[in-house]
Amino acid sequence: MAERGKAPPANPWAPTKDRAGQRALKRDAVLRTAAQLFSEKGYAASTLDEVAVRLGVSKPTVYYYVDSKDAILFECVHTGLQMLQQAIRDVDAAGGRAIDKLEAAMRAYVAIVTQDFGMCVIRVGEDPLPPASRHKLRRMKAALDNEFRELIRLGIAEGSIAPCDPKLAAFTVAGALSWIGRWYRPDGDLAPEAIADQAIAVLTRGLCGALPAAPRATPRRR
Amino acid sequence: MAERGKAPPANPWAPTKDRAGQRALKRDAVLRTAAQLFSEKGYAASTLDEVAVRLGVSKPTVYYYVDSKDAILFECVHTGLQMLQQAIRDVDAAGGRAIDKLEAAMRAYVAIVTQDFGMCVIRVGEDPLPPASRHKLRRMKAALDNEFRELIRLGIAEGSIAPCDPKLAAFTVAGALSWIGRWYRPDGDLAPEAIADQAIAVLTRGLCGALPAAPRATPRRR
Repeated sequence: MAERGKAPPANPWAPTKDRAGQRALKRDAVLRTAAQLFSEKGYAASTLDEVAVRLGVSKPTVYYYVDSKDAILFECVHTGLQMLQQAIRDVDAAGGRAIDKLEAAMRAYVAIVTQDFGMCVIRVGEDPLPPASRHKLRRMKAALDNEFRELIRLGIAEGSIAPCDPKLAAFTVAGALSWIGRWYRPDGDLAPEAIADQAIAVLTRGLCGALPAAPRATPRRR
Repeated sequence: MAERGKAPPANPWAPTKDRAGQRALKRDAVLRTAAQLFSEKGYAASTLDEVAVRLGVSKPTVYYYVDSKDAILFECVHTGLQMLQQAIRDVDAAGGRAIDKLEAAMRAYVAIVTQDFGMCVIRVGEDPLPPASRHKLRRMKAALDNEFRELIRLGIAEGSIAPCDPKLAAFTVAGALSWIGRWYRPDGDLAPEAIADQAIAVLTRGLCGALPAAPRATPRRR
């Protein structure tokens, strides 16, 4: 997840002997370029012509790797959601307290929604797609919501999270973090890590959370 | 702000003698119906034909009140942003500590983004509009961001808010609250007030904020 939003992919059209690997690389470049375009201009205003122009290839070349604009959007959102799912699985596998897992999941979430596919999940999402695709992606989103909810539930049970409505608390967390994907600019002066630090501080300790009236054992992260 | 999202407006096509008032009412019904449609189906997929069908009038009747689909979206987003601005002004006029103003502003924000025009600000926004309109609405949004930032700055100065980056903290707050406008269903079982309570609790006291390790004077709101 070290990749920053708009870094141009290495040129996958350079000659090579590894045909299958090259095909996968080229397909990824098409998807990534389309994800950037959709996030910048909106789905309706984006064309595969422009994807081709950005990649310096012909439109038929683009169609060699993908079937349609809808298929591209599906792949972009699906990939972004898979990244988010994998991040939660990694966090879970690392073990520890629920609150620590939740913090790690929040950090990974910010890292992903500030990258091409994750940003496309937030800014475009599944809404423009036909019902079957939309339904599949929504199920993935609901599963992710549930992971956050479960971590909050476990945190309450272990005593690291204050009693609250896990569903609404999870929506608050996901909302605050998802919004970052809406305003984040890869060429701006804020690094995703710094944004994550501040958002996590507000969400875990609260705007009023580190006041002299209620000092906390752990120092506030800057 | 007692209105709930999809309540059908009283029929403004009923006969009356107050022509100017009736015209304003009818125009409002057109805008409100369009805002609901845009939020439900997305801007690109919405047509003025469908606005007319929902109102039970002809398409020319719709055009008598508004010039174009773009003009409607501009009005919807403009109205939603004006409501948010007015809410901040009201909160400010009521006086008190910055943290209390901030909480009141957060509560008003949730009330507005769960209503027709506010929801349209969040779900559709200014992106589909031509540059001049987009620019005007973005300036209004930036001014709103600034109001939240200023309240956080004042809260830090008065000692009610923990030292933090006011810009990123304001984005975190606005993100968590705006997201509510994305998932809220007027026919769902959660009232905007209950959603606001939980979101405000998380944002001001934090997920870990009411733990035994750091007891707080004020009881957690349910």
